[in-house]
Amino acid sequence: MSCSIHQPWPLCSYLTPPQKLSVSSSNPKFHNRVRCTLIESLAEANPSSTVEPLLLRAVRGETVQRPPVWLMRQAGRYMKSYRELCEKYPMFRERSENVELAVRISLQPWKSFKPDGVKNEAAVLGFVGAPFTLASYVIEGGSSKHFAKIKQMAFQSPKVLHALLKIFAESMVKYIQYQADSGAQVVQIFDSWATELSPVDFEEFSLPYLKHIVDSVKRTHPSLPLILYASGSGGLLERLYLSGVDVISLDWKVDMTEARKRLGENVAVQGNVDPGALFGSKDFIKKRIYDTVAKAGRNKHILNLGHGVLVGTPEENVAHFFEVAKGITY
Amino acid sequence: MSCSIHQPWPLCSYLTPPQKLSVSSSNPKFHNRVRCTLIESLAEANPSSTVEPLLLRAVRGETVQRPPVWLMRQAGRYMKSYRELCEKYPMFRERSENVELAVRISLQPWKSFKPDGVKNEAAVLGFVGAPFTLASYVIEGGSSKHFAKIKQMAFQSPKVLHALLKIFAESMVKYIQYQADSGAQVVQIFDSWATELSPVDFEEFSLPYLKHIVDSVKRTHPSLPLILYASGSGGLLERLYLSGVDVISLDWKVDMTEARKRLGENVAVQGNVDPGALFGSKDFIKKRIYDTVAKAGRNKHILNLGHGVLVGTPEENVAHFFEVAKGITY
Repeated sequence: MSCSIHQPWPLCSYLTPPQKLSVSSSNPKFHNRVRCTLIESLAEANPSSTVEPLLLRAVRGETVQRPPVWLMRQAGRYMKSYRELCEKYPMFRERSENVELAVRISLQPWKSFKPDGVKNEAAVLGFVGAPFTLASYVIEGGSSKHFAKIKQMAFQSPKVLHALLKIFAESMVKYIQYQADSGAQVVQIFDSWATELSPVDFEEFSLPYLKHIVDSVKRTHPSLPLILYASGSGGLLERLYLSGVDVISLDWKVDMTEARKRLGENVAVQGNVDPGALFGSKDFIKKRIYDTVAKAGRNKHILNLGHGVLVGTPEENVAHFFEVAKGITY
Repeated sequence: MSCSIHQPWPLCSYLTPPQKLSVSSSNPKFHNRVRCTLIESLAEANPSSTVEPLLLRAVRGETVQRPPVWLMRQAGRYMKSYRELCEKYPMFRERSENVELAVRISLQPWKSFKPDGVKNEAAVLGFVGAPFTLASYVIEGGSSKHFAKIKQMAFQSPKVLHALLKIFAESMVKYIQYQADSGAQVVQIFDSWATELSPVDFEEFSLPYLKHIVDSVKRTHPSLPLILYASGSGGLLERLYLSGVDVISLDWKVDMTEARKRLGENVAVQGNVDPGALFGSKDFIKKRIYDTVAKAGRNKHILNLGHGVLVGTPEENVAHFFEVAKGITY
């Protein structure tokens, strides 16, 4: 079983768990799902498996032998094969919206890192943007450094912003439900820019919409785990927890032990190796993985970086990261 | 009495406390001090004053009537008068190193916001970069997004980086001592980029050097208060405290009440209004100032933004910020 997800923003692909994959793009079901912006799992290829994906079992707090591991790939810009493809297809939208290309891109990490089979199945991850973050792209007109435009709206015309956030929240509820109905087994919500807000503004312009999304999805899909990713959240951890998500993705700027203490035992955590660690020596990378896993403990931890793989990261170090991670036994 | 500080990095100027200022650039002592990269106070102009600056009294924990207030100006790019001057003198180094220009730039906020006199004197603030932050500029070759180069050095050749950090630490000790001997009454240490490190790396590559600076300066200048500024420090607050500084400058991404609780009563705090708040309505700005002051309490608080004034900030809102701040009575 294997999977990957495509959506225009942000373009991510999970890279584990491990099992060799062969995709037949002539499979009509596969194509159909791709058109739904979800390149879904090929469970049919391995009908004999009865073990649920490691990631799902870990999130539920079941006893597992090692933490599941995946990486956010930042559209794969660190990969030579992706950069070559970008030269041929320079438009991001083409790469995102052309089904054949999106499939090929989504499977590049699989091919490069040849995840080998172990005793679990891959989980299908879906991704959506959170309302404040989506609104920031709309209002700033792209990525932003100081978010002055959306803050001006928030602090001068909050009703206008709330109206927009409400629309996005409703849309994301439907989008998550749609992804789950199409096979996503976990969905990660990116609120990348909500952490640019002060806590009091986060409580007004991000948290209620996150809560609405979580509450609504839990009503229709009570067993679908939701992950919240928000980099730069060191001052906001307790508030992220209030959203009701199942997993909080931590950036590398908080200590895993301290984050665990602040968040309590009810919520799973994801992360939080510094993506810059992948510029270190192989020994260093191994040490950082071990440290992180030791601090996170044996329960409810998804091993990951605290951010996507950075451009310029040696691919062999990404491979090493997975190799070390998959070799862990609690 | 009045003051402002000039150093090539970062170009900052304090904007309060308040008293009308007239600077005679023909004053030879003044010129001499400017050449020392410190535009020092003109205490001589007001010899009758016996009250120490509000900022110093507040930092020491004395009973004060209101919090002192100043702003980091980010070289003044939000000011029309500065931008006009930049058109005439487009080179940053010229504006930094030409004494006449540096004086003029440093006094622009004074002229614009006409701080009025109250029952205290202005404190002379000095500024230095912290070793890790200085090293990041040297190794990255300028500002950086992901700090991959310095992290590569840290994680592959830590001894090389430590050697560089040690040199910077020694230099900054001397530089702070020099500023203090030239009249600086408080010195702010900028470790703007240390918060890009994970806590364990902060403990290795930033904290020991900050501690060395603080310890060394305290030996020669025991009553000189030191402020540590490090934006994005929500996950690191307790470690910033370990540096031994007198004041921790908070960005706007932590709640002031929570930061106070995490830091304890021994250390003063500075901040932490969202600089984006200055894009809000006048009422909104006032409310945010009041909220921040209420959360910080009556003791050991320097009112400030959590970051420098953003480009595009309406100057009248900066004026309003000071007006409201100076009108506060605990």
